[in-house]
Amino acid sequence: MAATAPLDDPRFGLARTARLPGPLRLDGGAFLAPVEIAYETYGTLAADGGNAILVCHALTGDQHLASTHPRTGKPGWWTRMVGPGRPIDPARDFVICANVLGSCMGSSGPASIDPTTGAPYAMRFPVITLRDMVRAQAMLVDHLGIGRLRAVVGGSMGGMQVLEWAATFPDRVASAVVIASAPRHSAQNIAFHEVGRQAIMADPSWRGGNYYEHDDPPAAGLAVARMAAHITYLSEAGLTEKFGRRLQKREAKSFGFDADFQVESYLRHQGISFVDRFDANSYLYITRAMDYFDLAEEHGGLLANAFKGTKTRFCVVSFDTDWLYPTSESRAIVHALNAAGAQVSFVELSSPFGHDSFLLESPALEAVIDGFLKAGQT
Amino acid sequence: MAATAPLDDPRFGLARTARLPGPLRLDGGAFLAPVEIAYETYGTLAADGGNAILVCHALTGDQHLASTHPRTGKPGWWTRMVGPGRPIDPARDFVICANVLGSCMGSSGPASIDPTTGAPYAMRFPVITLRDMVRAQAMLVDHLGIGRLRAVVGGSMGGMQVLEWAATFPDRVASAVVIASAPRHSAQNIAFHEVGRQAIMADPSWRGGNYYEHDDPPAAGLAVARMAAHITYLSEAGLTEKFGRRLQKREAKSFGFDADFQVESYLRHQGISFVDRFDANSYLYITRAMDYFDLAEEHGGLLANAFKGTKTRFCVVSFDTDWLYPTSESRAIVHALNAAGAQVSFVELSSPFGHDSFLLESPALEAVIDGFLKAGQT
Repeated sequence: MAATAPLDDPRFGLARTARLPGPLRLDGGAFLAPVEIAYETYGTLAADGGNAILVCHALTGDQHLASTHPRTGKPGWWTRMVGPGRPIDPARDFVICANVLGSCMGSSGPASIDPTTGAPYAMRFPVITLRDMVRAQAMLVDHLGIGRLRAVVGGSMGGMQVLEWAATFPDRVASAVVIASAPRHSAQNIAFHEVGRQAIMADPSWRGGNYYEHDDPPAAGLAVARMAAHITYLSEAGLTEKFGRRLQKREAKSFGFDADFQVESYLRHQGISFVDRFDANSYLYITRAMDYFDLAEEHGGLLANAFKGTKTRFCVVSFDTDWLYPTSESRAIVHALNAAGAQVSFVELSSPFGHDSFLLESPALEAVIDGFLKAGQT
Repeated sequence: MAATAPLDDPRFGLARTARLPGPLRLDGGAFLAPVEIAYETYGTLAADGGNAILVCHALTGDQHLASTHPRTGKPGWWTRMVGPGRPIDPARDFVICANVLGSCMGSSGPASIDPTTGAPYAMRFPVITLRDMVRAQAMLVDHLGIGRLRAVVGGSMGGMQVLEWAATFPDRVASAVVIASAPRHSAQNIAFHEVGRQAIMADPSWRGGNYYEHDDPPAAGLAVARMAAHITYLSEAGLTEKFGRRLQKREAKSFGFDADFQVESYLRHQGISFVDRFDANSYLYITRAMDYFDLAEEHGGLLANAFKGTKTRFCVVSFDTDWLYPTSESRAIVHALNAAGAQVSFVELSSPFGHDSFLLESPALEAVIDGFLKAGQT
């Protein structure tokens, strides 16, 4: 039995939570039940179910794809890609975006109540993988009565989920769009995440993850984690263009430890505002899932095996200044797809803004996605 | 009046501390007195004083250039460059290496006793600049009775000091060797340092810097700062070669938050071992000095002005995988030196190890330095 509760204005952006009985068998061996998935939909599902597009979000993203975020009051994170006249258009497409397993915006995660104890799971929540996230999404897609998705689309960790969708449920994905992503986490990717985890776990307010009953979450540690990660989302040239060595509200250096430079102030703001919308334990679990991600390893060590015999059409996009998931990672995906005989188009776009480019205004990206999705329409 | 106390075996590596009366006028406007400088010398000063080479250390370096570190028991940090038969050879050269102002290995810094209070300075220590560090070194060179240095040599922050030496005391530097360095700190450089500072200051044990009387320094925060910085010292390719996604002492992933990957374990070790040898407040002060560094700004906004009319010979070396101070930064130095009509040789060396290459075995680097220093001998 699954219950569906509408929580939002149904005219545009219908926010719901599906409580799926499960159990979901996880890659780590544990079983999760129930599986709660908070999601939004936009548009109307066609009678034949053939117009569904699933959008997968990134590490700190959420289901508020194109509607106002309830905590921050900011517009959805991908209104440039999803909306009237946009490449993904609710007038034509039935768009689904689900908060990933392990996150903190309504889907099952460490802040959820463990039914066996009546208290939040905290660190008793099972460690999950990106494939587990995708399996949970597939349960949601089942629940919505959709067999095959017209497209699965995502950037960064969202792109990794797209790859997992195509590898795990090849018959359910007509088209796959993988933006600014990678087929596995590199040693440097793991290293940056480990810094963030250590920053959180070093915060005495973390209390081994059991901070939910206290009004004192590990905000300082989570802010430092976010600051370190945020640097990796931007390019050196982008930071120089945006901030350079410009001073903050001062004519001269303070010869103190306040935020003298604009870039310091910006980073501090990024850290502080993040803790208002994100759960520290969720940050631990999702970064862990990303670090565990290695699609080739899941398929006998050969990436091409993940796509053997696939009928899915692929579109792979990278950005030239992205040093978190550089173009070489996208090329590795494309080489594997070529080796598997898959239909794939690949483009490296030019942008000064590094990894974050996929979230920013990019007419070139919109044109690529629009053309690719339109060409896949039947 | 200056006192000199030998502290070590004088046969090789003579460790001393000079207590110079000062006052030293700092760039921030404060006066520092006395100025204590812990340093080591190797070899014998020639009668004409013409064989002195000053080596400048990096952010977390120290004066233990080629002798055993008293706390870690490890060999000196640049035995590959300094020693018998090495490019800098105590049999020929009189080698000086001084702990920088603001550090914690015996030179005046936040852990030093403030003579006006009898307690450690902590955050009452004045904020310093790289030029202040160099001025303090010049006081030491005066104290040693040396007018002109045969060479000033350094990598990373050491290279920045070499640039300050050449710009501030052009008549006292015959040859300058600038390795893996930059003429100013970029927005990204500042951003990484700010993460480290915030990690330290977020640690409750930091106590606003007043932790010296407690047996509980901000070790967790300092370890996180070191971990974040350490990633920037290595290349992505070097991390992949050294660790890749190899697991730590386990056949399979733990599905937990222990250090599953070797790179996690390595980083944690880097963080933990660092706190045994470094003072958190010194880390704040030295990173601040580096972030303030902008040689062009100190010279009317034009880098070439810093070297106008210089007679110093320059050797500039970068490494192709160094993304902390990439080759483009060395090129900016070389262009300015060219514009100033200076004598300069420049080489980009190939190494897989990123910024840290200057500290690692590099026959090519040794050959470059050896040739450059020999060509400068009179």
